[in-house]
Amino acid sequence: MRDLAGRVLAGEIRAAARAISLIERRDDNLASLLSALYPSTGGAFRIGITGPPGAGKSTLAGCLAQRFVEAGRAVGVLAVDIASPFSGGALLGDRIRMQELASDPGVFIRSMGNEGQPGGVCSAARDAVRVMEAMGKDVVLVETAGVGQTDVDVAHCVDAVVLTLVPESGDEVQLLKAGVMEIADVVALNKSDRPGATGLAGELRETLHARGERDGWETRLVRTVGSNGEGLEALYQSLEAFSRHLKSGHRLAVLRERQIRRELRERVERRLALRMNAALARESLDRAVARVRAGEDDPYNAAERLLCET
Amino acid sequence: MRDLAGRVLAGEIRAAARAISLIERRDDNLASLLSALYPSTGGAFRIGITGPPGAGKSTLAGCLAQRFVEAGRAVGVLAVDIASPFSGGALLGDRIRMQELASDPGVFIRSMGNEGQPGGVCSAARDAVRVMEAMGKDVVLVETAGVGQTDVDVAHCVDAVVLTLVPESGDEVQLLKAGVMEIADVVALNKSDRPGATGLAGELRETLHARGERDGWETRLVRTVGSNGEGLEALYQSLEAFSRHLKSGHRLAVLRERQIRRELRERVERRLALRMNAALARESLDRAVARVRAGEDDPYNAAERLLCET
Repeated sequence: MRDLAGRVLAGEIRAAARAISLIERRDDNLASLLSALYPSTGGAFRIGITGPPGAGKSTLAGCLAQRFVEAGRAVGVLAVDIASPFSGGALLGDRIRMQELASDPGVFIRSMGNEGQPGGVCSAARDAVRVMEAMGKDVVLVETAGVGQTDVDVAHCVDAVVLTLVPESGDEVQLLKAGVMEIADVVALNKSDRPGATGLAGELRETLHARGERDGWETRLVRTVGSNGEGLEALYQSLEAFSRHLKSGHRLAVLRERQIRRELRERVERRLALRMNAALARESLDRAVARVRAGEDDPYNAAERLLCET
Repeated sequence: MRDLAGRVLAGEIRAAARAISLIERRDDNLASLLSALYPSTGGAFRIGITGPPGAGKSTLAGCLAQRFVEAGRAVGVLAVDIASPFSGGALLGDRIRMQELASDPGVFIRSMGNEGQPGGVCSAARDAVRVMEAMGKDVVLVETAGVGQTDVDVAHCVDAVVLTLVPESGDEVQLLKAGVMEIADVVALNKSDRPGATGLAGELRETLHARGERDGWETRLVRTVGSNGEGLEALYQSLEAFSRHLKSGHRLAVLRERQIRRELRERVERRLALRMNAALARESLDRAVARVRAGEDDPYNAAERLLCET
């Protein structure tokens, strides 16, 4: 593990890929690897790209990655969704574009399934982002699956959230207002050349303006057309502006502290939930009940025993 | 504690009252006391008296207690509600009747507040019932507060549930059907001399009949008038019949096993919830976050430390 950590820190792509695989399958030796990497993390600008399926999140993530590379940054892309084009699960055209991007030496792309990790997507994504930071990436883009709570969770692990909408999202906006929209720093109205875009843009602008500034930043709306690159420069500039905003005053420090606090909470909760599942596993519970019923134990000791033995 | 246990087992009223006080305030030495009592518990017929406030639960509990005493049984009454007449919080007439009952040497009455015991009412009631069993009670009546989930929880700790309704409960019955009514073994339609009683009785009978038998018992409906004793003999006889039903076949053993299983689950869950609260207490979490932010620790070790230190 020490060796793997060293290779990740040296920027070896295969080592980073292997580290993320270990995170995906929650390898037993993960903690020592992540502890070794940790001091070299926390330096990247972490951007979450969220929004409903079909809004063009992957395309925007790809374009942004390219633009950040042009600006001289080393970029990592993490797709937290097995159906993302980054995972090879999409249309041929998309896939070719992604492969072009992937062949750029400044870009590291990795996708990550979120099955079998109830409540752990955020944790796994956070650790994968750290691997990318440890290998030297300056910007990490996290594309979420676009399906509710997971997106909100992932958004709490990143520094900036781009909410991607399309003109067809009109009906969803009402729903989104309550959740994801609350945590968006930039809203990208993608496929903005389609009918209905201008109306929705007006509505969104009104909503965002009515909400006003939070800690000195009013969520920006940018109209984009991912397929021809329109508005992408404005999206990129908005993110750079938000990055500068974060770096002014103590904002970044406060954000990092909040992220750490949240992570510690989640880790403690998950560890105890795992212990609960172990203690209350069918077999051990059956044995404990049997012992109490046979008069060999009382419920008070039996409960303690269940907690100690597992 | 050993001494207190001995005095409870000898049937000393003051010792039993003290034991229940310790349960109420979750004394640190509780586990050893309860462990010592446990082998002498599990013998009583535990009856829960539930239903909305104002339905006359205390009156019915009092009458039933008297009737069980007449039948030669030692009776305990536990009111899990500080507003119960058993706690002195009621009308003078009620209170006088309760005091008469309390002066009967065969009856032990105790009330128990449920404030500050989130999720722990059932656990505290279960332990208090055991104290009553350990002091030699053959029948223990548990009067609940009549307010939703707590009642359902308490019902899971007893052997029989009497749901008390009044003609005015008509509207509530629809709601009750989903919850408490599902776990009622006998329904007492109290204040049955009031208008609307016959209509509601018909409706209830239909509902109960439509539901049919569960494990060989169809929930019985009894019309009572607590204030003049009408129908109380029928209520008493229904409970005796249910007691005989439980004792036939393996029913009581199955029920006790289910109760123990539930209790072990709850104890494990509560212990872990307490650990979580301790680990995530403001102060310790603040300290851990500060250590991570200062680079003295990483989130992986910090979370482990939070769990170990508390």
